Amino acid sequence: MKRPAGQHPGSIVIVGCGRLGAMLASRLSRSGSRVVVIDHDSGAFALLEAGFSGFRVTGDAVEHDVLREAGLAEAACLLAVTEKDTLNLMVAQVAKTIFAVPQVIARVYDPTFEALYRKLGIHTISPTSLTAREFLRVIEQESGRP
Amino acid sequence: MKRPAGQHPGSIVIVGCGRLGAMLASRLSRSGSRVVVIDHDSGAFALLEAGFSGFRVTGDAVEHDVLREAGLAEAACLLAVTEKDTLNLMVAQVAKTIFAVPQVIARVYDPTFEALYRKLGIHTISPTSLTAREFLRVIEQESGRP
Repeated sequence: MKRPAGQHPGSIVIVGCGRLGAMLASRLSRSGSRVVVIDHDSGAFALLEAGFSGFRVTGDAVEHDVLREAGLAEAACLLAVTEKDTLNLMVAQVAKTIFAVPQVIARVYDPTFEALYRKLGIHTISPTSLTAREFLRVIEQESGRP
Repeated sequence: MKRPAGQHPGSIVIVGCGRLGAMLASRLSRSGSRVVVIDHDSGAFALLEAGFSGFRVTGDAVEHDVLREAGLAEAACLLAVTEKDTLNLMVAQVAKTIFAVPQVIARVYDPTFEALYRKLGIHTISPTSLTAREFLRVIEQESGRP
């Protein structure tokens, strides 16, 4: 495990290094942000682009020690982007309530509880809603429908 | 199986009635489009909203007979939105090359082959890219970064 020692304030912690997590980690790191990415499977870090200069933490993000090791207590932002809605929302709540992270954003496939989480200070992003909107835009653009 | 007999030109055929397929089918149907939705699992149709007035076809969309039964030969548009990239791209290619459907759009999680498919006349939409863009927008908007 690579230890992200000495996190300065303002880092972005990303939970989940799947396709989305790796894409965000790579882009944010490239644009100068200090990035820490957590995944329970160290093999997932292979998705990061070659020049990725952030930190990698292998571990289960439901464990507070793992989040602490990733420097969450001093982070400016937490992005919860594993494949599991429940895990993303759990990590987001912990980040907001226990670690008092200023900005918390979670990917949530099921947008049902969006309003509830917004009340808790957690911004949720639903790929399903975004994708549906894009489909409707393309259909309308290309054919004048619906 | 409910037969969508007598499809008139201009219908929208949707392959895959998961969260995205059901959302698109419901919205397009509500806004007056003639919609046919195909899924291999008839239980998936439970995701359609109560007032859905389109047609449901239970079957495997890799079988041309199933696509024919759904009226694909006369359709104006095919949306391939199952959970599987390979299946979506296969159905999209069949729709374009064999059924000559004017507008073909596929959900593809892996955007690697986007350019290739665009050359074949297939518009691909990547939830990963869309979602990453939205995350970056929200991060920037709320904190002035990256």
